[in-house]
Amino acid sequence: MHNIRTVSFPDQQLLADLEPLPGRLRGVVWDLRSDPQGGTLAEIDAVILPYIDAGAVLPALADVPGLKFVQTQSTGFDGVREAAGPAAGVSSAAGVHAAATAELALGLILAKLRGIDQAVRDQLQAAWRPERRQSLADRKVLLAGVGGIGHEIARRLEPFEVTVTRVGSTARDDDHGHVHASSELAELAAGHDILISVLPLSEQTHHLIGEKVLAALPDGALVVNVGRGAVVDTAALTKEVTSGRLQCAIDVVDPEPLPADHPLWGSPNALITPHIGGNASAFEPRIVKLLSQQLEALAAGRLPANLVQNGPF
Amino acid sequence: MHNIRTVSFPDQQLLADLEPLPGRLRGVVWDLRSDPQGGTLAEIDAVILPYIDAGAVLPALADVPGLKFVQTQSTGFDGVREAAGPAAGVSSAAGVHAAATAELALGLILAKLRGIDQAVRDQLQAAWRPERRQSLADRKVLLAGVGGIGHEIARRLEPFEVTVTRVGSTARDDDHGHVHASSELAELAAGHDILISVLPLSEQTHHLIGEKVLAALPDGALVVNVGRGAVVDTAALTKEVTSGRLQCAIDVVDPEPLPADHPLWGSPNALITPHIGGNASAFEPRIVKLLSQQLEALAAGRLPANLVQNGPF
Repeated sequence: MHNIRTVSFPDQQLLADLEPLPGRLRGVVWDLRSDPQGGTLAEIDAVILPYIDAGAVLPALADVPGLKFVQTQSTGFDGVREAAGPAAGVSSAAGVHAAATAELALGLILAKLRGIDQAVRDQLQAAWRPERRQSLADRKVLLAGVGGIGHEIARRLEPFEVTVTRVGSTARDDDHGHVHASSELAELAAGHDILISVLPLSEQTHHLIGEKVLAALPDGALVVNVGRGAVVDTAALTKEVTSGRLQCAIDVVDPEPLPADHPLWGSPNALITPHIGGNASAFEPRIVKLLSQQLEALAAGRLPANLVQNGPF
Repeated sequence: MHNIRTVSFPDQQLLADLEPLPGRLRGVVWDLRSDPQGGTLAEIDAVILPYIDAGAVLPALADVPGLKFVQTQSTGFDGVREAAGPAAGVSSAAGVHAAATAELALGLILAKLRGIDQAVRDQLQAAWRPERRQSLADRKVLLAGVGGIGHEIARRLEPFEVTVTRVGSTARDDDHGHVHASSELAELAAGHDILISVLPLSEQTHHLIGEKVLAALPDGALVVNVGRGAVVDTAALTKEVTSGRLQCAIDVVDPEPLPADHPLWGSPNALITPHIGGNASAFEPRIVKLLSQQLEALAAGRLPANLVQNGPF
């Protein structure tokens, strides 16, 4: 079915963490920005993408003539299938980031609601300025995204004395209750204080949270995005946040990095983290474990896990 | 048993929230800093303390010749019995702050571990700087304080994939497992990544978390305080944090406010919020409900709740 021999690793450390490679697999180091070290592009069969800013280097996949497999280090895989071409298999790192991303979502919500961001700014001036802020307790939360990370966010919200309403692509019921359809978002928004998006990016979700949904949120509501930036219409969000009507706490944005002259940076109603949802100590043991299993599968000619495009498999 | 007629409220708003007062009770406004409005010190029988900075105005209680009852708006009541004198009853606001304080503890932990504080500083320079940080997932948490707020913190930590070890004044077992004695703190510290204190202040807890306990924590450990500042030896903590060996995320400190020239302000390893644990939207409905019940009890000659000193009751 396939004959994968040479696998590229985005950095020396990751290769070292996985050596010795199983079977007859051979590792080279390629960051998709400069020439590979330890082998040539023509020799590479499989590519492990970098975790950070992978989107920016995807075009380099076109330079690998014999590409058979691409492994992301992220849960999302927007643009990877297109860049790899239909002949290559593509696997995501689904599951690896759930704990780290879900806890960041809670951290962003609590930091923005309770004014921890303002306290950090006050600290720079040695200023002790207590202010009464919104609690997470008693809030109504609208959670868009019911995959692995969405589930972990809902689980972590449970003890915080909140009401959680879940939204998926289509209406359905599961073990945890009712899931609303994404077509109901604008209608639901009016009755909620916090909107969390952890939706993947697709044609269906692109700008799903736009002018209409944002306008439906009540004054002072908080928009949280730990999924993909372009699910939210950044221009529409920026307008509502810089006007002071809404707040946001976002780990992802469109585009990334956010340009230095973007007005969101300067708004005290915005809290921005630089796409670090999955980028925490929980990541390392979990990604090494996944990659190790994937390499074993490739070496043994078995099917890798998390395939989102079959390619030769 | 008592004959309480005139109750002072620290501000006009709180009095307005509770009017009309039950029975024959009469309200005056007294902030314990200037003269009472609507009555004289000689007429006041009961005092509701301000929520913010109550410690600073406690000496004014000595100016009330017929003081029979003092109500705090905080869970802690350090110094209040002494300032009120043994002839007055004293009640705390236990229970009112649990949800708000527990969620702030989680917010401080997540903000410090995941670098949300650094992201806020980066945001001021429009800088997108992703860095790998510690997850809360996989951490070992030592929780000192097993009262109402401690219980709410433990409950909120549960879904975060952590191990929680609880410490109370004495060793015992309860419905949630084993509680270690505070004498075991230094020994336990060595095996934990995060130390949370929500201990009340007493002779026994003063500087309980001092040089010895702090030195026992592993490099990079995080000290969180949402209880009372003086339970931690601030000088010892400052030394460990400014040297870069430990991190802290503290809502309370000794003294408060932290002086503008204190070295903790300038340390990127310190995250400081200005004693806002209970100061959130969850507070208002809960304190108004408690005060309303207390006034009903006083008007009817019944015992108020949460008495920590009996006085005439």
